[in-house]
Amino acid sequence: MKKVLLTGFELFGGERVNPSWEAVRSLKGEKVEGAAIEGVCLPTVFGKSLNRLRQAIRDTQPDVVIAVGQAGGRAGITPERVAINLEDARIPDNEGNQPVDQPVVKGAPAAYWSTLPIKRMVRALREEGIPASVSHTAGTYVCNHVFFGLMHELEQACRPMRGGFIHIPFAPSQVSDGDHPSLPLEIVRQGLLLAVRESRHVTDIRETGGAVH
Amino acid sequence: MKKVLLTGFELFGGERVNPSWEAVRSLKGEKVEGAAIEGVCLPTVFGKSLNRLRQAIRDTQPDVVIAVGQAGGRAGITPERVAINLEDARIPDNEGNQPVDQPVVKGAPAAYWSTLPIKRMVRALREEGIPASVSHTAGTYVCNHVFFGLMHELEQACRPMRGGFIHIPFAPSQVSDGDHPSLPLEIVRQGLLLAVRESRHVTDIRETGGAVH
Amino acid sequence: MKKVLLTGFELFGGERVNPSWEAVRSLKGEKVEGAAIEGVCLPTVFGKSLNRLRQAIRDTQPDVVIAVGQAGGRAGITPERVAINLEDARIPDNEGNQPVDQPVVKGAPAAYWSTLPIKRMVRALREEGIPASVSHTAGTYVCNHVFFGLMHELEQACRPMRGGFIHIPFAPSQVSDGDHPSLPLEIVRQGLLLAVRESRHVTDIRETGGAVH
Amino acid sequence: MKKVLLTGFELFGGERVNPSWEAVRSLKGEKVEGAAIEGVCLPTVFGKSLNRLRQAIRDTQPDVVIAVGQAGGRAGITPERVAINLEDARIPDNEGNQPVDQPVVKGAPAAYWSTLPIKRMVRALREEGIPASVSHTAGTYVCNHVFFGLMHELEQACRPMRGGFIHIPFAPSQVSDGDHPSLPLEIVRQGLLLAVRESRHVTDIRETGGAVH
Repeated sequence: MKKVLLTGFELFGGERVNPSWEAVRSLKGEKVEGAAIEGVCLPTVFGKSLNRLRQAIRDTQPDVVIAVGQAGGRAGITPERVAINLEDARIPDNEGNQPVDQPVVKGAPAAYWSTLPIKRMVRALREEGIPASVSHTAGTYVCNHVFFGLMHELEQACRPMRGGFIHIPFAPSQVSDGDHPSLPLEIVRQGLLLAVRESRHVTDIRETGGAVH
Repeated sequence: MKKVLLTGFELFGGERVNPSWEAVRSLKGEKVEGAAIEGVCLPTVFGKSLNRLRQAIRDTQPDVVIAVGQAGGRAGITPERVAINLEDARIPDNEGNQPVDQPVVKGAPAAYWSTLPIKRMVRALREEGIPASVSHTAGTYVCNHVFFGLMHELEQACRPMRGGFIHIPFAPSQVSDGDHPSLPLEIVRQGLLLAVRESRHVTDIRETGGAVH
Repeated sequence: MKKVLLTGFELFGGERVNPSWEAVRSLKGEKVEGAAIEGVCLPTVFGKSLNRLRQAIRDTQPDVVIAVGQAGGRAGITPERVAINLEDARIPDNEGNQPVDQPVVKGAPAAYWSTLPIKRMVRALREEGIPASVSHTAGTYVCNHVFFGLMHELEQACRPMRGGFIHIPFAPSQVSDGDHPSLPLEIVRQGLLLAVRESRHVTDIRETGGAVH
Repeated sequence: MKKVLLTGFELFGGERVNPSWEAVRSLKGEKVEGAAIEGVCLPTVFGKSLNRLRQAIRDTQPDVVIAVGQAGGRAGITPERVAINLEDARIPDNEGNQPVDQPVVKGAPAAYWSTLPIKRMVRALREEGIPASVSHTAGTYVCNHVFFGLMHELEQACRPMRGGFIHIPFAPSQVSDGDHPSLPLEIVRQGLLLAVRESRHVTDIRETGGAVH
């Protein structure tokens, strides 16, 4: 593993911070186990986000791609297991698009699995005391759109690349009324660094991590 | 639509009621828009549940199959959108099996979509004041196992059948300490009846129902 | 116990149903263990609600007074333990009043205990499979205002009366998007009937029911 | 304000960290606006905790006393508004005591108000992006026991002292399965420091901060 491409998202939904991009930006240029981290910011826009991602993959030629997005309301860092071929936007994106019940890629499979070692990641984070669990849904909005488009891209690519998606919680300053869980940027940054480190493993461990429903 | 097969699950996890089977049993023999409802109880066991389901499909030759299971902690009735080809059991099933990171059906696709009109169902329930929403994960336990196996079966079948999965909340008596949401059997029964009624529609409506994450 | 006065609240906050009044209205005129139930609807307005309650007490001369209000988001029926001498309104009431950090009754104690047998009530409801627990805060809005004002009134009264407050969850039709817990009117009605029945006991049972925090 | 006494709790309930004491210990010896911070660790035991607190007050002669405890499940830092004269232990304390429906201090009032400027504290924390809100219940366990006992002590004291209680969330390492909200020690430390700074104000601000229920 020589190069890891991380992506975050631009500001969205009236928020004044975007922890996914803040965290990714802070990791840009770091080296983990000999691999260099590249960082790119994606627009929170259906279509454009994927174009930007494809461009970044062409430009940086990474071995591993990890897209990072915010899942407000979750309490821990959650590597996603499965991307689904569906766009169903409850709210418009940053350019007013609101696709309903459309595929991300026409003719592509219903779903792709993450090819990251997500259970290794969860174990590594927990060992450092960072809240983490495997998630089985990345939603049906721009995050899942990017996740599915990424996995489709990697599937089609002529050289081997692995990739996936990681959701992160709100930053504390986004929820200062105290009603929602949060994790500070510094913890998220540390967690992503561990995730990048684990991503060098091609095979995952077999460890219980499922959801009863 | 002449025949609808509903399935519920037997007792599980030390609970003393099983609302999914109670509700299904109470609907057995009813007629909805000219279609007869059959009801079958599945064991909460990987493998055996699917065998029982396949047998019931052969026996009853239904036009529509709706599997029903409990999702303790959810507040509404949630038609599931997507079944994934994964078994990852956090706890053992009723016979002690605990598969980790196995496919439900080797060589089958990563996921199948429900072929029920899930957005019609959600709309119909809400119009009657019954809490409902589309869910994008059925977990990785016996419920998803049955859901995926069912969709694979329907995909392979020589005559056209449609089907899917609906999760229901706890019954009030299961959560009498007041810490978790619940819906009484009578409301669940009414909701499932509406869902069966809507299931005669082959095509769904296009209505926002997605999840941001 | 010859007469029990129940109160509910009028419509509030843009809702189209008011389960507290619906439930109380449906119990009006019933007899429980020989005691007649009277029912009165209070305005969701600081001051006026208490005036109406005092009037109803004078008119009906009850032995027991139980005020009922809605606590959207709670999953069970929650008899309140303690009323505090504080008004702190996060939103305006139905007539635009929004008191901040004011006492309900100047010069009165900081708090009054409910004089209802709240643990008996919780036990009776749970035995019937109805979700219930003791609550240790009735908030700082009109519900607590009425609760505190009621307890102050009973404290001052020249003949012995007992009373308290019970919070109830949303009705299912208020939360049909499936995001919040609810209990149907029929269950709430049944629960309040049990609570009225238990209210004939002057002394409570000693049974664990506390909150760690 | 020359001296502020902070207290935290010892390990409890099988946990391997105690963020309240960790945070308080890390602040011991600091100076805030000219005031020195003293720190004391209390046993999680009914009675003994209060004895230790009274001793510490005699020893340090503080102007302000702030007891700090953990409220697992809360997402923000929550200054408590009201202490109630009640012990009702759902689980035994660290020495096996489990009082049910007992007063903290026989013959004392039903409740005491915090004499800390809790709304100033909440505002100061939020301005720094730290999740915070006023809480209206400190439960009925050792935390409320210490809070009530403290306020009773301050009420009886011959020289003017002010005080109250602040609840803090889990540390991330306590909830590494990702199911519960948390705040890192460093953020809690920073939040308590702001709270101590604000505690020099004898009068509070009037700012909406109530709870509808």
